[in-house]
Amino acid sequence: MSAVLKKRARGARAGDYERPAGLSRFARRLLAEWKRLELPASGAPVVVAVSGGADSVALLLALDELRRAGRLSVSPVVAHLDHGLRASSSEDAAWVAELARRSGYEFEQERARLKAGAGYAPDNLEQAARQARYEFLARVCARHEAQVVLTAHTMDDQAETVLLRLLRGSGAEGLGGMEPVRLLSEGAAPLLARPLLNWARRAETVEYCRGREVEFRRDEMNEDESFARVRVRKRLLPLMLEFNARAVEGLMRTSQLLREDARVLNRLAKNLLEEAREETSASKDLQGGLSVQILKGAPEGLRRRALRLWLVEARGSLRRLEMVHLLAVERLLSGERGGRRAELPGGAYVERRRGRLLFRAKRVENGGAHD
Amino acid sequence: MSAVLKKRARGARAGDYERPAGLSRFARRLLAEWKRLELPASGAPVVVAVSGGADSVALLLALDELRRAGRLSVSPVVAHLDHGLRASSSEDAAWVAELARRSGYEFEQERARLKAGAGYAPDNLEQAARQARYEFLARVCARHEAQVVLTAHTMDDQAETVLLRLLRGSGAEGLGGMEPVRLLSEGAAPLLARPLLNWARRAETVEYCRGREVEFRRDEMNEDESFARVRVRKRLLPLMLEFNARAVEGLMRTSQLLREDARVLNRLAKNLLEEAREETSASKDLQGGLSVQILKGAPEGLRRRALRLWLVEARGSLRRLEMVHLLAVERLLSGERGGRRAELPGGAYVERRRGRLLFRAKRVENGGAHD
Repeated sequence: MSAVLKKRARGARAGDYERPAGLSRFARRLLAEWKRLELPASGAPVVVAVSGGADSVALLLALDELRRAGRLSVSPVVAHLDHGLRASSSEDAAWVAELARRSGYEFEQERARLKAGAGYAPDNLEQAARQARYEFLARVCARHEAQVVLTAHTMDDQAETVLLRLLRGSGAEGLGGMEPVRLLSEGAAPLLARPLLNWARRAETVEYCRGREVEFRRDEMNEDESFARVRVRKRLLPLMLEFNARAVEGLMRTSQLLREDARVLNRLAKNLLEEAREETSASKDLQGGLSVQILKGAPEGLRRRALRLWLVEARGSLRRLEMVHLLAVERLLSGERGGRRAELPGGAYVERRRGRLLFRAKRVENGGAHD
Repeated sequence: MSAVLKKRARGARAGDYERPAGLSRFARRLLAEWKRLELPASGAPVVVAVSGGADSVALLLALDELRRAGRLSVSPVVAHLDHGLRASSSEDAAWVAELARRSGYEFEQERARLKAGAGYAPDNLEQAARQARYEFLARVCARHEAQVVLTAHTMDDQAETVLLRLLRGSGAEGLGGMEPVRLLSEGAAPLLARPLLNWARRAETVEYCRGREVEFRRDEMNEDESFARVRVRKRLLPLMLEFNARAVEGLMRTSQLLREDARVLNRLAKNLLEEAREETSASKDLQGGLSVQILKGAPEGLRRRALRLWLVEARGSLRRLEMVHLLAVERLLSGERGGRRAELPGGAYVERRRGRLLFRAKRVENGGAHD
């Protein structure tokens, strides 16, 4: 810290944040986002997922910079999952281990049992890898009693996610992309936080690593265009940036706006669901179902969300539930004649009986009813 | 209509729509959408905007097919605005006049006074052309006492609109794209309806024209990549279609879902605005403003929409109002110190005084207050 900057810092008015003099711009922005997201400021262990790529190395280095400058006193635990998908993956693991050792941080690693080509389509492989990674991170958190896991997703990752979902015709929930902070798994701590998501371009993480003179690893799977995400990254996003140099920021803003919308709408949909459920039914058999009349009177945007909440609850997950199923259930509301049953993936179905929608699990107790 | 099909039509159960036997698929789909949008079924004059391109020629031909088959009895008035931007534009006008004459429909044309290069950026030129066109269509409607104008925007146009707005980081309102039916100008009839928007790909309009053996005109401005829309059409959309052959349908579905969301949210925002306005203030000077406390307590998605509604009302239009202005007004809600004023384009501003947000028009009566 230079003498001049120290003076200015001392001269700051009370109530100002301390001036983060001497910090790199990257670390300053991380600190600002850290505060905005209300992440733990002191003492606590935080698990940092480090693949060895520029994004995660930059995140770790910037945390290190903030610790050394006395601006954060969290204790990073470096976590690395070797997906075992590439010949070089154990070298990556050793490299990350060495980075952690030099920084003086604890290091945790595991090797996953995913196999490329073993029955996975590329995009399913990506999903399986993500799930293995999140389960690993949950174990590391438990081991270290950490309340927070950090991943280094950038604004570019968010833009790619939004575009991938746009290609599938998603609504606000899908286009809302990743949350900067959410629970790692549903219903329980630890938190998963992405402190680079809202502001860091991928190129800035590379630049920051170079400025710190720290190497990073390259993942050749990031070059493999059999992954939809890689195609979006290598071809679609560059074209959009050619049209508008701030397209990534645009996509990020869109995702923020739509996340806010989805929050409001899902809260209202929950109310609608309760209302549709509460309207009592004379027949005991029909209880637990939803009132057709109440759903019919609600605006489409809320009705569809209420039905989705209901089905997720009844089925235990959103797995394989597509818009086409929701639309089929919705059609039961208006159907005067014909189909009074909408099939769901996995054999369950929804039927309409005497003014109620009823969820029927795969195996019907009285047998035979499921033709 | 073949004898067999006639028989099937007669055999249809009561309550079914009549079976549109003998109609082309394109005309059948137009008829289905016509009913879904509840457009006038009989007798009424409808103004059809015909540029001479495949989209608008297909729309006119399909209306003609439905009329001849006795399925619609509206009276088309063909309207063509010669924008005067190209050497060949008067040939287009003559060509459309001839098409109308052969079909036996009334024909209306005007020549606009736009000049390419006369101080317009390409995208502003596009906007000026659209405005001139809509004003012309309103005049034609008035002349013929028509309640409906039809334009031939397709699903491809909708996809392009969504992508253009995505590049700018729009929220649900922007990404909702064009409405299939809206008022031509705010607050008053006639309706502007786009009966191809929800289902027709541009290629289908070309195919339908060819099937009917009717020529159409090509607009070389549709090839000019100085227009953002043309760049999106010629480069971005084809790439997305390479990734997902149903990307246009996906974009269309996204736009429908987001329009539904925006409808619900804007209704709620209107309520919030009323609430924030009604909370009375002791000082007469502060009346007409909005309660900071009520706005602060509302979710972001609603608050921002309420502020936008308020500003549009106070300023008389949305003109030049950008997200950055809304965010500045929003910051007044949380600002403890510092800026108590947010500037708006055109010199008006919003200030925060004793717990209220107040709109101040450009010229302040007591003078001097505007520094």
